[in-house]
Amino acid sequence: MSNPVKVNPDLQKEREKCTFNVIELTNVIDGGPQKTEERKKREEMVFKEGIHIDEVPSDYLSHKEKYELAIKKACLLFKMMRRLQEEENAGMENYMALLGGTLGSAILGDGSPLTLHYVMFIPTLMGQGTVEQQAYWIGRAFNLNIIGTYAQTELGHGTFIRGLETTATYDASTKEFVLHSPTLTAYKWWPGGLAHTANYCVVMAQLYTQGKCHGIHPFIVQLRDEETHMPLPGIKVGEIGAKLGMNGTNNGFLGFDHVRIPREHMLMKNSKVLEDGTYVNVTSSKLTYGTMMFVRVMLVHDVCNYMAKAVTIATRYSAVRRQSQLRPDEPEPQILDYVTQQHKLLIGTASVHAFRLCAGWLWDMYNNVTAELESGDLERLPELHALSCCLKAIATSDAAACVERCRLACGGHGYMLASNLPLMYGLVTAACTYEGENTVMLLQTARYLVKAWHQSGAALPPTVAYLARARDTRLTHSQPWRNELDAIVDGFQRIAAGKIALCVAQIEKRQKSGMPYEDAWNMTSVQLTSASEAHCRAFILSSFQKETEKLVKTVSAPLRIVLLQLVELYAVYWALQCVGDLLRFSSISERDIEGLQNWYEDLLFKLRPNAVGLVDAFDIRDEILRSALGAYDGRAYERLMEEAMKSPLNAEPVNQSFQKYLKPFMQGKL
Amino acid sequence: MSNPVKVNPDLQKEREKCTFNVIELTNVIDGGPQKTEERKKREEMVFKEGIHIDEVPSDYLSHKEKYELAIKKACLLFKMMRRLQEEENAGMENYMALLGGTLGSAILGDGSPLTLHYVMFIPTLMGQGTVEQQAYWIGRAFNLNIIGTYAQTELGHGTFIRGLETTATYDASTKEFVLHSPTLTAYKWWPGGLAHTANYCVVMAQLYTQGKCHGIHPFIVQLRDEETHMPLPGIKVGEIGAKLGMNGTNNGFLGFDHVRIPREHMLMKNSKVLEDGTYVNVTSSKLTYGTMMFVRVMLVHDVCNYMAKAVTIATRYSAVRRQSQLRPDEPEPQILDYVTQQHKLLIGTASVHAFRLCAGWLWDMYNNVTAELESGDLERLPELHALSCCLKAIATSDAAACVERCRLACGGHGYMLASNLPLMYGLVTAACTYEGENTVMLLQTARYLVKAWHQSGAALPPTVAYLARARDTRLTHSQPWRNELDAIVDGFQRIAAGKIALCVAQIEKRQKSGMPYEDAWNMTSVQLTSASEAHCRAFILSSFQKETEKLVKTVSAPLRIVLLQLVELYAVYWALQCVGDLLRFSSISERDIEGLQNWYEDLLFKLRPNAVGLVDAFDIRDEILRSALGAYDGRAYERLMEEAMKSPLNAEPVNQSFQKYLKPFMQGKL
Repeated sequence: MSNPVKVNPDLQKEREKCTFNVIELTNVIDGGPQKTEERKKREEMVFKEGIHIDEVPSDYLSHKEKYELAIKKACLLFKMMRRLQEEENAGMENYMALLGGTLGSAILGDGSPLTLHYVMFIPTLMGQGTVEQQAYWIGRAFNLNIIGTYAQTELGHGTFIRGLETTATYDASTKEFVLHSPTLTAYKWWPGGLAHTANYCVVMAQLYTQGKCHGIHPFIVQLRDEETHMPLPGIKVGEIGAKLGMNGTNNGFLGFDHVRIPREHMLMKNSKVLEDGTYVNVTSSKLTYGTMMFVRVMLVHDVCNYMAKAVTIATRYSAVRRQSQLRPDEPEPQILDYVTQQHKLLIGTASVHAFRLCAGWLWDMYNNVTAELESGDLERLPELHALSCCLKAIATSDAAACVERCRLACGGHGYMLASNLPLMYGLVTAACTYEGENTVMLLQTARYLVKAWHQSGAALPPTVAYLARARDTRLTHSQPWRNELDAIVDGFQRIAAGKIALCVAQIEKRQKSGMPYEDAWNMTSVQLTSASEAHCRAFILSSFQKETEKLVKTVSAPLRIVLLQLVELYAVYWALQCVGDLLRFSSISERDIEGLQNWYEDLLFKLRPNAVGLVDAFDIRDEILRSALGAYDGRAYERLMEEAMKSPLNAEPVNQSFQKYLKPFMQGKL
Repeated sequence: MSNPVKVNPDLQKEREKCTFNVIELTNVIDGGPQKTEERKKREEMVFKEGIHIDEVPSDYLSHKEKYELAIKKACLLFKMMRRLQEEENAGMENYMALLGGTLGSAILGDGSPLTLHYVMFIPTLMGQGTVEQQAYWIGRAFNLNIIGTYAQTELGHGTFIRGLETTATYDASTKEFVLHSPTLTAYKWWPGGLAHTANYCVVMAQLYTQGKCHGIHPFIVQLRDEETHMPLPGIKVGEIGAKLGMNGTNNGFLGFDHVRIPREHMLMKNSKVLEDGTYVNVTSSKLTYGTMMFVRVMLVHDVCNYMAKAVTIATRYSAVRRQSQLRPDEPEPQILDYVTQQHKLLIGTASVHAFRLCAGWLWDMYNNVTAELESGDLERLPELHALSCCLKAIATSDAAACVERCRLACGGHGYMLASNLPLMYGLVTAACTYEGENTVMLLQTARYLVKAWHQSGAALPPTVAYLARARDTRLTHSQPWRNELDAIVDGFQRIAAGKIALCVAQIEKRQKSGMPYEDAWNMTSVQLTSASEAHCRAFILSSFQKETEKLVKTVSAPLRIVLLQLVELYAVYWALQCVGDLLRFSSISERDIEGLQNWYEDLLFKLRPNAVGLVDAFDIRDEILRSALGAYDGRAYERLMEEAMKSPLNAEPVNQSFQKYLKPFMQGKL
């Protein structure tokens, strides 16, 4: 970390008292020194082009100008990528790093209209097209001769895919499909880039042939003329309007009025419609779980980036900001010295490590299960599905809460867009809804857990094996509680098992009183989401502990101490959050709770000197943070003023509205 | 409620099954049928002028255009008010209704640059000016010949007023004060209207005279020329930049370079500087608590409006939205039929009533205490201060959580600005920070509670009398738990008392181990905020219960049932949220908890048919809701599409960026 400009002296002091080697931790996070070096080189290469620099920050632009800037930047970014790939002979990896990671979002800001082309359109062609279709489409898409998107969600239908209304009816006489939107609620709604950017689209529609519906299938539809970009006849396309965030993504709507496409435009790798209209189904529907799970696994990884950025900003600012008094006759302390502030921030730092390691574990499991799938083994699919659902829900909601807590911890200045925290919240909270709404996700995991509860111990896969153990001992609380990490992890498994047991009993009781199973399930669903969350927390805690224990074997002693403190902090924090559940389902006592509380306060005290070092280790460049409050040099106040001066309102001492409205109004002449 | 347009049939059915008279509840909320009528008349009068109608929704404007629109609307609104006052001979009441309440914010949208003129500038002149100063300034301010604001917060200093850096140094030789900003962090930062709107300002500054600092005092400073609106010499003024919300408020910064003002511009009602520079202090500093407490009491009332709006939008949308399957072979159910959805929404409805009644109670107390103050009786001031601090914190954070939960409960469509939920969140979350940051507020209440704990029972005022009771019985859990309202209220008081007792013990223990009191306090502060929150929840529950019991004596039997169900729901919801605390500090058992859970599910089931009726009773006009999802007619999808079509991007089928960037890029020519 070079340090050419003057660093705020408070921040400098924080760095001097850090007890571990920051670069060592950065290397651990990146996956080794070489990975760190590669990342830094890639960042250097990208930022020296200056595409990320806005003359006027996009916060000040109109909605339309924001889109136009997003298009310009996306084009320049991909042009640069083409050039770098030619120069460096790099592969797809760079594309992905730019699009998915912090680097891409740093340059594109509030979303890009081309993202779905890469992350959905091309992958769908690859995954669902026949070899011939791939040969025809993928080259054109990859060279960006055409720009595509992926349209599934409709105005009236989201998570429940079977409810989609758009139809694709096969007409054997012309060998065409007729795409149609029978109602307003059938309009496609939300796809990124759909509004004014894409000229092609994969459309998910109910397939009708020979008078029968065969469910949802993918079709390639041309939306706009390749030369003029005008919408084609029968295509009603536009944008859905302004949103809380992602105002660069150009989300669109799409309606069809009997639009005809050739039979070959149905993507036919998995199912076919023959020329005469005969429907042929090729593969198991279970295989389509794959993409959904992939996206959810990626999401868990993504939200770590948001948390790391937010906690970097808030921690550095808390070292710089001085406020109020702790002790009489002393100067105002750094707000980081308030224990309530440490309570808000250090759990964020610990969460980044917890979710990062869980995401890594899940990624390995995903790869294993996918490999097994290809050899026809579906056994671990339900376990992976259940785990990816609840982790998606908990990771996104914890991350959103973390970003918002960091924003509020920065006081009024966190409310400024210049802090970058509001924009980040807008992006991260969206993930609570897309790719499976969080409550729905938790209930999917609950279904799996209830099923697992009824299975014998031997049949239970590893991540739910604790259910069998708990089933036998849960009522006796046989083990005495100890204020130790293992006891907390065990306690959380008891909570999860205990809650599932209660749900199962509740559902059975309701059924016995004459309620249909579905109603009994619904009536118990608040408790079911809570059981599902407890399962997820038990998993996160346990894998954070196990993965860290492996990790610390490879690091220096000073770093080992800090990493283990973070695991403890995370576990004790959640034990205190869930103390009622522990009282219900473990043998913890009131005296133990007071001990936990002191343990927690002691951990905050021990981690306090390393607070800044820990976020420095995330090694997020200023160009990626984009925050006046969180820059490496800690010049928060100077940067706030510099950012304020960029407001177009400050370009003129007197705004035109004074002459037009205010003065006549003040003179009673309006 | 007139009903000229077609109402969504699902919503219609909901209204038909409501068990109570909606208008009766509306009257109860307004404070009587006549108040309802007056409100409706006022709304009718204001909205028929059409000032609230935007050609292009402000969501699509640039930051600068948003300000210009805000100025235009504020001027038109006040012009209308002048006219109506002349026509109707109405008093200040209408002004206040327009500025503070839902009506004003419905018209002004995202804040107004003139609000601080009315709610801070004029009141400060009235409260802190001498009779002569009032005679000189108030007429000009009231007729809007001058526009003012109030500048206290600085770039480097917020809640801790003593830390402010701006100086006002008296120069006896010229009989002037010299205003100066010695550092960048001394710049005033945040005042609404300061940037480009106000030409005068009350500035809070450290008063220096005869070489001595006398602390913070108010000064009137002219900022801009009355004719040209140009900033005066030595005045550095501008806007602070874009924010998460309130982008119409024109928040500004202000720096002084040795700016001279006449001695008479110090507001001298409470303290004076004589011509020769002698400082004369007139009144007790305790009296200045008054304004702060007034604003906090008002805030508790305000946030009820946000919750009522959010829960109206989300409940109506949940009646209209159909999704997924509850039972096989049945059509998609209204999402309001999912118990998890009822869990998210009905607590919002109950919270509106809880906080509304608490705010009313607090308002009465405020008026009593203020009257006592004027007769020199300061006895209840600390109790009121403690109560207003924690209620400010809990009301604003609960309201922000409620709005956000409602937004997420609307799925993807809640993310659209057309739902109005994101804008509302931006406004309500700001209240967690301004007028006293919430953690600071909770710690102020905690200080009072710790002090009260040490007092004898007889000396304790009513709202903390339970401390003495609990002090004697808390360790024995003498009373057996019953699943009844009274037991829950009692349980929450035991929690509060138990947590305060633990904090006191903890602090004493730390002091005995040699820690200074201030450090022991800081070390215990996470627990102290939790004790303070528990005290507040005990108060809210207890006054919600008591006030409702009074209220239901005056209403019809069907309404009585529903109002009591809401109190039960609120109490049981919070009992379940805090079940760990109940296990620690009351005699509740595992079996009781299962009973509470069933009680809760039973209440959701009973309240479900009245969900829509309950929000209809808030009687919030569509023009105030401003939401495509929440309108009275339930035409959510049609309105979403209508709103989308207002996006300027949809005015052209092809955006100019296609020719400029996208096409050359696709052809490899960029």
